[in-house]
Amino acid sequence: MSIVVLVGDGMSDRRVSILGDRTPLQYSRNRNMCLISKLGENGIIDPISPGVTPGSDTAHIALLGYDPFEIYTGRGVLEALGSGISLKRGDIAFRCNFCTLDEKGVIVDRRAGRIREDGEILAKSLDGIRISGVKIKFKQALAHRCVLVLRGKKISHEVTDTDPKRVGVKPLIPKGRGEDGERTAEILREFLNIAKETLSEHPVNKERIRKGLPPANFILLRGASFLPEVQKFKERFGVNGACIAGMSLVKGVARLLGLDVVEVEGATGGLDTDVLSKADATISSLDKYDFVLVNVKGTDEASHDGKVFEKVNMIEKIDLLLGRILEEKGIEELTIAVTADHTTPLEVKKHTGDPVPVAIYSKSARRDSTRLFDEISCSSGSIGRISGKNLLPIMFNLEGIGEEFGE
Amino acid sequence: MSIVVLVGDGMSDRRVSILGDRTPLQYSRNRNMCLISKLGENGIIDPISPGVTPGSDTAHIALLGYDPFEIYTGRGVLEALGSGISLKRGDIAFRCNFCTLDEKGVIVDRRAGRIREDGEILAKSLDGIRISGVKIKFKQALAHRCVLVLRGKKISHEVTDTDPKRVGVKPLIPKGRGEDGERTAEILREFLNIAKETLSEHPVNKERIRKGLPPANFILLRGASFLPEVQKFKERFGVNGACIAGMSLVKGVARLLGLDVVEVEGATGGLDTDVLSKADATISSLDKYDFVLVNVKGTDEASHDGKVFEKVNMIEKIDLLLGRILEEKGIEELTIAVTADHTTPLEVKKHTGDPVPVAIYSKSARRDSTRLFDEISCSSGSIGRISGKNLLPIMFNLEGIGEEFGE
Repeated sequence: MSIVVLVGDGMSDRRVSILGDRTPLQYSRNRNMCLISKLGENGIIDPISPGVTPGSDTAHIALLGYDPFEIYTGRGVLEALGSGISLKRGDIAFRCNFCTLDEKGVIVDRRAGRIREDGEILAKSLDGIRISGVKIKFKQALAHRCVLVLRGKKISHEVTDTDPKRVGVKPLIPKGRGEDGERTAEILREFLNIAKETLSEHPVNKERIRKGLPPANFILLRGASFLPEVQKFKERFGVNGACIAGMSLVKGVARLLGLDVVEVEGATGGLDTDVLSKADATISSLDKYDFVLVNVKGTDEASHDGKVFEKVNMIEKIDLLLGRILEEKGIEELTIAVTADHTTPLEVKKHTGDPVPVAIYSKSARRDSTRLFDEISCSSGSIGRISGKNLLPIMFNLEGIGEEFGE
Repeated sequence: MSIVVLVGDGMSDRRVSILGDRTPLQYSRNRNMCLISKLGENGIIDPISPGVTPGSDTAHIALLGYDPFEIYTGRGVLEALGSGISLKRGDIAFRCNFCTLDEKGVIVDRRAGRIREDGEILAKSLDGIRISGVKIKFKQALAHRCVLVLRGKKISHEVTDTDPKRVGVKPLIPKGRGEDGERTAEILREFLNIAKETLSEHPVNKERIRKGLPPANFILLRGASFLPEVQKFKERFGVNGACIAGMSLVKGVARLLGLDVVEVEGATGGLDTDVLSKADATISSLDKYDFVLVNVKGTDEASHDGKVFEKVNMIEKIDLLLGRILEEKGIEELTIAVTADHTTPLEVKKHTGDPVPVAIYSKSARRDSTRLFDEISCSSGSIGRISGKNLLPIMFNLEGIGEEFGE
């Protein structure tokens, strides 16, 4: 069995005036995607539900066959799992940023100058602290992004964020709800005091100031969440799966669902990502796994920056990645879908709730009359309009996986 | 009011190479079905949900407007109702097979040579036994298939099957879960001992051995289930309905929902079924009922056997049946849908979770541009992609049946 879902992150779009009112997919030379459209079935997907804007996290939960309304508890746990922290039931996880405060305690940079290498040493200085019997893990994820995990008894995710999401104000004070929430907020307040002192005194920050770099002298917390109860992918579908992605958030989703994460040299999660390495990793993973989800992030990054031709170029790179997979594996051997996790219109620069196109090829699948892979062409295909969580059951059905309901 | 749902059982398919990569519906001369498509609205139906493989039972529950996830308790009660046993709340019903054991108690034939007439007498010898205050009904359904019903207090459906579903092994011992389940398993074990003794000593079996036929010297049980609470069809929809089907399973679904079952001479549930008698029964039933569901099983049988041209032939017979109804009633007088209960691809030989085509005609229905009745043509129709349980509400709406939700 070789089942592949190729996700162009935020690849779906709306009309773009500079492209003659076409979408980037309509404008691009995406011949391999169109081959899937031509030989297979097409449709559109509401990743979550019609008109609802998905996050990359909830969208991937759905595209992997789970209901995000049931198992999504927040981004903290996903970032923690994504950056390789193993979690236990009862842990509370937060996403954090290193930030820069001025002498009055006002935020002047929410990302501490997008600190990179220095962050690792600073993160270690906060890792392993114990407060009131609660053990604190602190780890740098990527650049200024970190993860905080509380492990202990009587703690809760019911605490407020401290990140005001803008500069010029002081960080917020964490507040708790309920007995455990209040205790958790108290522990966080104590931890933040220690963090402020430790970070401002840290030689790494003194050196940064000397170099004229903004010191990472505080942290901002958000997305408190707990590990949800999830039936593992293999147990749920009887399929052995892996995920290839540059973004730690997508890796976190994969680990939450019990998929293996295949690390790829050169998969940066950016526009410079090495798509052919990703293709090769997919091909070799199919020797070991029945199912592989490959996410390529660059299209979303270009969309968030409003860079039209970088998006077009990235789509064509993803098309190359697809071409390599088709060439090496042989299309007849694959059950493969091409889609996006959400729409990120270049002219909006953030995620929107528009549906995304999907094309599915399988030797046994029906064949409709759609010949092009884009938002409009796919919408008239024989799949019609489905929900994100329906995609894998549909693909697994084509491979004969899944139990009959009734007789 | 004359509302008809015509179900070609397992009629929906995938591409078939010997048909030039067309589906049997695309290949067949199904002019009457295409007439419904041309004059009405078209779409595709997920009988259960996208990618989920339906049984004939759960699919018919859905096509009759009910949610199978809510009311499906297993096949035992449906077989019992289908073979004419009336059930009371609390009864536990099983499907059974007569089987043949060798002298060591190992199964050598799971169907006792597909025993026919002899089965009735043998079944009677097991009917009416009482064990620990529980009354046992035992009835032959069709050929080697029988139904077992337990009636009494403190019994439960939480008992395991005894049918190992293969030959060369001994039947399994029924085990119970919970107090009532364990009591039920105990009763079953005692009943099975009695059955083994009664059947092996029975003159009918001695005669069978003498003739060189496999004796029906034991029974295999599966599908323990209880009667679910169901709002009757007439009460739910305000519509007076009937069902015409050869298969006892479909009859059982109909009876469960409170539909009348119209028996038709010559409706065998096989490829030899008399489709014109079924058409005539439909036409005459419409004098008495507002709604009739007609199921023709032959298409599914041909699919399970992988017989391409028998399926094509059966589709054309169903088309004749439809033609007769249209001719006799006049299409203008009808609100009629043509569909399938599930897909049974000839190249897979079992049910799959692919959607099925549907065409609906009603004087008041919209008319789309679809002109052919098949899996692909219907998918671009104006109905789009709906769930099985949506079909009847859509048809009833065209007849002005149904209450306004809100004001």
